[in-house]
Amino acid sequence: MEIKSYLAAQKQRVEAWLKERMPRPERLSQPVFDAMQYTLFAGGKRLRPILVVATAEMFGDNGSPIVQNFACAMECIHSYSLIHDDLPAMDDDDLRRGMPTCHKRFGEGIAILAGDALLTLAFELMSAPLDALPGRQLRALNLVAHQAGCLGMVGGQAADLLCEQTEPLPDDVGFIHLRKTAALINASVKTGAILAGASDEQIDQLGHFAEKIGLVFQIIDDLLELESTSRVLGKSTDSDRRKRKVTYPACFGAAQARKDAKTLTNQAVRHLRPFGEKAEVLKGIADFFVTRVN
Amino acid sequence: MEIKSYLAAQKQRVEAWLKERMPRPERLSQPVFDAMQYTLFAGGKRLRPILVVATAEMFGDNGSPIVQNFACAMECIHSYSLIHDDLPAMDDDDLRRGMPTCHKRFGEGIAILAGDALLTLAFELMSAPLDALPGRQLRALNLVAHQAGCLGMVGGQAADLLCEQTEPLPDDVGFIHLRKTAALINASVKTGAILAGASDEQIDQLGHFAEKIGLVFQIIDDLLELESTSRVLGKSTDSDRRKRKVTYPACFGAAQARKDAKTLTNQAVRHLRPFGEKAEVLKGIADFFVTRVN
Repeated sequence: MEIKSYLAAQKQRVEAWLKERMPRPERLSQPVFDAMQYTLFAGGKRLRPILVVATAEMFGDNGSPIVQNFACAMECIHSYSLIHDDLPAMDDDDLRRGMPTCHKRFGEGIAILAGDALLTLAFELMSAPLDALPGRQLRALNLVAHQAGCLGMVGGQAADLLCEQTEPLPDDVGFIHLRKTAALINASVKTGAILAGASDEQIDQLGHFAEKIGLVFQIIDDLLELESTSRVLGKSTDSDRRKRKVTYPACFGAAQARKDAKTLTNQAVRHLRPFGEKAEVLKGIADFFVTRVN
Repeated sequence: MEIKSYLAAQKQRVEAWLKERMPRPERLSQPVFDAMQYTLFAGGKRLRPILVVATAEMFGDNGSPIVQNFACAMECIHSYSLIHDDLPAMDDDDLRRGMPTCHKRFGEGIAILAGDALLTLAFELMSAPLDALPGRQLRALNLVAHQAGCLGMVGGQAADLLCEQTEPLPDDVGFIHLRKTAALINASVKTGAILAGASDEQIDQLGHFAEKIGLVFQIIDDLLELESTSRVLGKSTDSDRRKRKVTYPACFGAAQARKDAKTLTNQAVRHLRPFGEKAEVLKGIADFFVTRVN
């Protein structure tokens, strides 16, 4: 199977699900809904929801309502994190995917609230009364909350912000990337498995896989930021170096970074062995993560 | 029973529960944990968690672990909303309960992240694997997510922010207060009932009660803001009028506001009739809401 056509098809599916699930705007608070939509539908590869779907498929769930809801929730959380990370008090970015960032378009107050609303909507979607086993649903939701919180994604962003003011240590890069990026990718894969009834051992294996491709994703992101032109990426490049962000290539050099990304991908794929052919899609996604050019 | 001593005793209990549930800080992201603690333990009456507890008690649950977790979650959500509402892009407040606001103390970036982390922690607490019925737990969590989101609290704050720029209409006050304040009070009461096994009809009655005392709470808040000195309230007063906030007394006058608060309290208490003596505490809390002086 061609992974790129798989990703394109799933992206369309995820976007249709997201559209169906957007709350109906209210007159007095209309701009907050507009801001949510603006960032949520500003493009993006929808990789986190696709990981939920692809993993659930391995265990025979071909997109049940609860898998759809978790897939959409992961994208809502990702979008909220982009909105808040772009704020002037954080990374202070004006462009995202070639468009003005949310606060540039709607103002800071509405952007903060749109982020809050997307995060909250994610939990509303994950807890929706659907024909699913409530025990599994709770377990998956609890994992997402943990990985998105102060010991996960938010903690990673905080460490990233704080490290701008100091000289970054090589160990700090791993700490930050595991939390800032890998935590949500880990949650996406594991929730797919949990919801579709995988065993604890299978969930663990997939968690190791996800953590490693999450690190790869961030290393490649940093390399692209360093190497690409703003035309391809659609955002102002080289802003990481400008802000002394803790990046993998900055700490270890670009050549070593690319080499380590390949090694990590190989290690990740090894965790898929017990699943045989059923893991072909996840393997394809891992290859895509390390070879992507934007 | 003396309601004030009940509230004081429950406040202590809630604060002990909160302390037990705070995540252990990590070195690289330490300030975000400090900022969470700073706002969460800066005082406050703990009314939302107490409403969870008091309502659960009516149905025979005297503070089971899941009720404790939901009580703490409501306070985390309340604290997050205070941190984000105080930001310069929102209400731009420097003082809260006599202390510098979170962003004044820790900077805007960390304050935004501390709010995000508290909101996420709330959902982690509500989905914790405890010896509770997962169906009830999910239902209560789903309600909280809805009431806290873009159709609830966040929507109310957005409307509040947007109305600063226009001439407020009387109808808008109700829209904003129902969402900004009453939604979370409604969720607190209803989750207590849901978790402790109340019937759908009982949950509905208590929801009507909660919505009305939620409106009373905000009317009295606005009146105190207008009338008190900053010594008693511990925050800069008259800032609402300065910012042309949509307040009840500004729209209808202080005398009418106080009268309407009393009428709403009477209406609220009528919803408690079916519960007889078991609703004494909720009745006491309703009376406290309308008579409080800070």
